[in-house]
Amino acid sequence: MVSLEQKASEWSGVDPKDAVAIDEINLFEKLGLQTFINLSTNFYNRVYNDEEEWFRSIFSNSNKEEAIRNQYEFFVQRMGGPNLYSQRKGHTALIGRHRTFPVTHKAAERWLHHMQQALDSAADIDEDSKTKMINFFRHTAFFLVAGVELKNQNKGTGCKNCSHHH
Amino acid sequence: MVSLEQKASEWSGVDPKDAVAIDEINLFEKLGLQTFINLSTNFYNRVYNDEEEWFRSIFSNSNKEEAIRNQYEFFVQRMGGPNLYSQRKGHTALIGRHRTFPVTHKAAERWLHHMQQALDSAADIDEDSKTKMINFFRHTAFFLVAGVELKNQNKGTGCKNCSHHH
Repeated sequence: MVSLEQKASEWSGVDPKDAVAIDEINLFEKLGLQTFINLSTNFYNRVYNDEEEWFRSIFSNSNKEEAIRNQYEFFVQRMGGPNLYSQRKGHTALIGRHRTFPVTHKAAERWLHHMQQALDSAADIDEDSKTKMINFFRHTAFFLVAGVELKNQNKGTGCKNCSHHH
Repeated sequence: MVSLEQKASEWSGVDPKDAVAIDEINLFEKLGLQTFINLSTNFYNRVYNDEEEWFRSIFSNSNKEEAIRNQYEFFVQRMGGPNLYSQRKGHTALIGRHRTFPVTHKAAERWLHHMQQALDSAADIDEDSKTKMINFFRHTAFFLVAGVELKNQNKGTGCKNCSHHH
C-alpha cells in the first residue's frame, strides 16, 4: 500500500525531509506569536475574499476568527511553541478535522496560492523561514488530499468491511 | 453538531481539562525517553499476547516493533519532548492513521485495560504522572471512537454529499 506520505510527496513535489525542515530550528522562538497571528489573519483575509466562489464557499460555514485562531495555534504548536491548539481543542487530528471539507487537488493548490501570497507579503518572516514553511504547507496540503481521497475510496468498497477488517 | 471532544468526554467520563493535564508539567523531561520506551513495550507485549483473540487480531497485520516505536514516539512528542514521530513519519493525524482499525467502544476499553496494567506495573512512573497519563489515554481512546464512528456515519449518508457539502 502506498502510504499517505508517499502520495503527499509525489503530488506536492516536496521531499519528506524538506517537509520537516521546519524542525531544524525553532520557528516559534525565532518568529514569535504575533508573526503567526499576522500570517493566519492575512491568509484568511485572502480566503474569505477569494474571487473564486467555489473555494470561498468551502469556508462559508466556518467562523473567520475561529479559523484564524485554529490555524495559528496549530502552527505555533507544530513549529516549536506551546501546545496552544491541543490545550484548547484537543488532538490536532489533521485528517479527521478536515473530513467534512472537499480537500481536492484543486482546493489544495488554491489554499497554497493564498498562503504563498500571505508569505510573500509578510515582512516579519525571513526568506529561509518562508522556504521551510511553504515546503511544510505544500506537503501537508497534499497529505490531506491523500487522507480524504482514501476516506472516499473506503466508502466505495463497502462500509462494514473496511472498518472491521483484521 | 456534537463535537468529537464532547463525545470523547461523555464516553470516557474524563473532563476535557483533565485530559490535557499532561500539559501542566513536561512529562518527557520528568520521565525521560527510556520510560516511554518501557511503557510502550510493556503495553504491546500485553496486546500481542491478549487472550481475547478479537482484540489481538486487530494488530495481526502490524509489526510489533514498529507499533511500539510509533506509540512511544507519539507519546514523547505530545508530552513535551522532541517531534520524534513527525520527523520520521509526518503528521500524527490520529484519526486518519486509525481509519483502517475497528476502533469500537469495546476495543477502546480493551486498549485501556492493557494500558492501565502497563502503567500499574511501571515502577519508573510516579502516581501523579500515571493519573495524568491515563486520563489523557482514556479521553484520546474515545476521541478515536468518535472519529471513526463519524467516518462510518458519513459512509451511510452518501459519499458525494458528505465530501462536497458547503
